[in-house]
Amino acid sequence: MPEPRDRASRKADLIAALTAAAADVWVATASSEGVPHLVPLSLAWIDDRAVIALDVASLTARNLAASGTARLGVGPTRDVALLDVALERSVPVDDDPAIGAAYAAQADWDPRGVDGYVYLVLRPTRIQAWRESNELTGRVLMRDGSWLV
Amino acid sequence: MPEPRDRASRKADLIAALTAAAADVWVATASSEGVPHLVPLSLAWIDDRAVIALDVASLTARNLAASGTARLGVGPTRDVALLDVALERSVPVDDDPAIGAAYAAQADWDPRGVDGYVYLVLRPTRIQAWRESNELTGRVLMRDGSWLV
Repeated sequence: MPEPRDRASRKADLIAALTAAAADVWVATASSEGVPHLVPLSLAWIDDRAVIALDVASLTARNLAASGTARLGVGPTRDVALLDVALERSVPVDDDPAIGAAYAAQADWDPRGVDGYVYLVLRPTRIQAWRESNELTGRVLMRDGSWLV
Repeated sequence: MPEPRDRASRKADLIAALTAAAADVWVATASSEGVPHLVPLSLAWIDDRAVIALDVASLTARNLAASGTARLGVGPTRDVALLDVALERSVPVDDDPAIGAAYAAQADWDPRGVDGYVYLVLRPTRIQAWRESNELTGRVLMRDGSWLV
């Protein structure tokens, strides 16, 4: 097992993962009845926000609209980051050229022009990152929306 | 993009992933208030059941005890399987030698003897598997607990 990283290294590694071309993220949401949902989606990291693009009628979009919250999993399971996020805004894909351009620049597809699709702009509130068990200590990188490092 | 696989190939690939040494799984659960939770955990695949081992006091275990349901994500995000599962039983780690041995044989750790840990035996009810967009058709491999292939 490699030596544990400090928080600054974990943040740098996480930002690299979040801004990588064709990055993906696991998006966990829940219905108001407490039924969990989970899907992988393309991710763009724009101005310290996680941005996903999806059909406004999808279960993930409906759960997020109702609850305002999701939990994102990034990276392979042994080099993981978990982001608790709050829905900041929902933007039809042709309504915000800046987001549209930034999303298309990072993702490997471009949802602009796709009927019924929206960008969901997700604001992280808590972020944890660790690789193996020796990194469980010090895994909280953001709390209450503020970076700890 | 490679040619889409048929259902039989997807099932074979999925079983290989589920039975691989040191397999991991993303476990999405939800509280009764609809707050999503997501963690990566080690997985064992025993008698057509997904078995995870965790602290009975963890949020994932408490959510599963309350709701009886979870959604599991397996594989990298571009070679994914999603398993909707029902909690079949919860077994203290020293109470079932057969599960204990099978779990330890597949996972890269052995929870036996760890105070407060349980095996959660999860029965799949619905399974989907796809790689890229050309595999979205035919992605359902199990429905209502029965393999379609």
